[in-house]
Amino acid sequence: MPSLSPRLLDLIAAIDPVDHGHDPAGQAHLDNLTKPRGSLGRLEGLALQLHRIQGGARPPAADPARIFTIAGDHGVAAEGVSLFPQEVTRQMVLNFLNGGAGINVLCGTAGIDLRVVDAGCPGDDFDPHPQLIRRKVAPGTANMTHGPAMTREQCEAALLLGADLAAQAAADGCRCVGTGDMGIANTTPSTALYCAYRARPPEAVTGPGTGLDAHGVARKAQVIRAAMAANRRAIESGDPVDILAAVGGLEIAALAGLILGAARHRMVAVIDGFISTAAYTAAWKIAPAVAGYCVFSHASAEQGHTTILHKLDIRPLLDLGLRLGEGTGGALSIFLLRSAADIFEKMATFGDAGVDAGK
Amino acid sequence: MPSLSPRLLDLIAAIDPVDHGHDPAGQAHLDNLTKPRGSLGRLEGLALQLHRIQGGARPPAADPARIFTIAGDHGVAAEGVSLFPQEVTRQMVLNFLNGGAGINVLCGTAGIDLRVVDAGCPGDDFDPHPQLIRRKVAPGTANMTHGPAMTREQCEAALLLGADLAAQAAADGCRCVGTGDMGIANTTPSTALYCAYRARPPEAVTGPGTGLDAHGVARKAQVIRAAMAANRRAIESGDPVDILAAVGGLEIAALAGLILGAARHRMVAVIDGFISTAAYTAAWKIAPAVAGYCVFSHASAEQGHTTILHKLDIRPLLDLGLRLGEGTGGALSIFLLRSAADIFEKMATFGDAGVDAGK
Repeated sequence: MPSLSPRLLDLIAAIDPVDHGHDPAGQAHLDNLTKPRGSLGRLEGLALQLHRIQGGARPPAADPARIFTIAGDHGVAAEGVSLFPQEVTRQMVLNFLNGGAGINVLCGTAGIDLRVVDAGCPGDDFDPHPQLIRRKVAPGTANMTHGPAMTREQCEAALLLGADLAAQAAADGCRCVGTGDMGIANTTPSTALYCAYRARPPEAVTGPGTGLDAHGVARKAQVIRAAMAANRRAIESGDPVDILAAVGGLEIAALAGLILGAARHRMVAVIDGFISTAAYTAAWKIAPAVAGYCVFSHASAEQGHTTILHKLDIRPLLDLGLRLGEGTGGALSIFLLRSAADIFEKMATFGDAGVDAGK
Repeated sequence: MPSLSPRLLDLIAAIDPVDHGHDPAGQAHLDNLTKPRGSLGRLEGLALQLHRIQGGARPPAADPARIFTIAGDHGVAAEGVSLFPQEVTRQMVLNFLNGGAGINVLCGTAGIDLRVVDAGCPGDDFDPHPQLIRRKVAPGTANMTHGPAMTREQCEAALLLGADLAAQAAADGCRCVGTGDMGIANTTPSTALYCAYRARPPEAVTGPGTGLDAHGVARKAQVIRAAMAANRRAIESGDPVDILAAVGGLEIAALAGLILGAARHRMVAVIDGFISTAAYTAAWKIAPAVAGYCVFSHASAEQGHTTILHKLDIRPLLDLGLRLGEGTGGALSIFLLRSAADIFEKMATFGDAGVDAGK
């Protein structure tokens, strides 16, 4: 990717793969805790992943954790691919700032810091708010059925915005960031990204989003097919940033940058659902080493997510039929990650507890 | 069941089925929150279940929550069906009281009260401890390959012990109880109970417990077959309490009583894994109305649990490969229940937030 800006090149170069050299000591510790070996299942895997990401430092920590719910609008909404009007993106940002959305409630329950980011809403800047980060790259994307959703420059700016969010979180002491999205119509570009990166036909991945009927889903798949035709050159180039610019979104690119930045700063990145996994796919195409830093929170009810996770050989933690986005699945999963960290650090060993370790 | 003691008959008579009359109002409220309809998946189902159990009172509450980890020993351990010696039950009770076990850590992470109950450990009474409830019914069960594990009187006493735990939790203001077990060899009676209640052959349900190899699993299935032969009359009687006495365990019967008592006091009962689901099966055979009060926390890695859940038409919340027992899966699930309660109570409605409700 010779055309990348120097800052993006520096970011990618600074991402170290996770070091599996810490695994034997971490596994030996887990096996010495007062439980049958392996009996805490995936919690043990999460604990080992934290131990690995944090270079074997004790205690492994999932906290402080911060979720970024990043908002952007989509020109392709004009094609009628969502049940909700585009204004809802902006209305929901205000709902986030007033504390009334699902992600507010779940962050409150789980004790997770929430930041809301305007990466690409139309209209004036939002009024300042302590939880709001105003970094509007553009007032929404262009309609990707007529050409690229973003210019290359816009896409790189959104990636760097996400990386800046991660850097600030790391500077604030966070050990974990969660990805969240808000953008009416954004299952459409996310589906297009899967199709472009993974060479899948739109019909195999397109689902109802917030609630389209079968006719609406078929129409949405046609829109995605048209967008891919209009951006054939970018898709065939195989350049992950050109593809992201062509059929992505401002919030999706910012989330990809957040994931890159999390890996850069050795934080665990908790990936939410369908849209966030599309952002992950872009980040992973840009820098494959991000994989070791990511935890996949849940299987979305959105048709296609399970297919995509399977293709990526990823087994998510939860399967609760969620399809809200905003980072809600991530919020639930950060609790599991915290539980895993506590298991690693706070359980007694067989020797300390005077418990027979069995045969 | 004419032979039941008056106290058990009163308990069963006092269990009201949950009232689905509250569902339309609860569902209408959920559908009016600022999210696409149904997009919080099973969290919405949990919220509606809480709303129903609590008779539509606001706010729906999962807290305070208390997990009871109930310990008992098993005469059938003499048949070599576990990798761990029987002394470990007692050692683990001390570990619970010292705060070093998995359930201690996960209750701490989730903010759940934990009580440890001696329902049937051999040896002297444990020293007093604020978290310990000393209600030893007998110093372990008899070896069920030679006859009933418990007398009918012991079994009823254990059921009433569990009911007393629920009554005390209700008196303390709890809205939710979780089931937890500790008893070396207790996957063996649990498997026998499934086979007896559901007419399944032992080979179809028997698994490795804490880690038997294939030879050990085959041997364990033979032991279960022998126990069922030795208790054929009780099993063929179809009397759920006689079956529980014949091939159950003291902690399992106490957990069944806890579930009955939770339903009696309109508390949600969070069912842990393989052993707790066996206790649930007994409670449900005794009083089918308990079903509406129960939340099934996770699919155990223990072979047979998924089979049994499927037969009971139950889809558990989590599938994390846990097989520790103690109530650990329940502790994780109570966090989901709390999240669901908060969603119901704390999210903004479309009208309040000024968000367009879509088509």
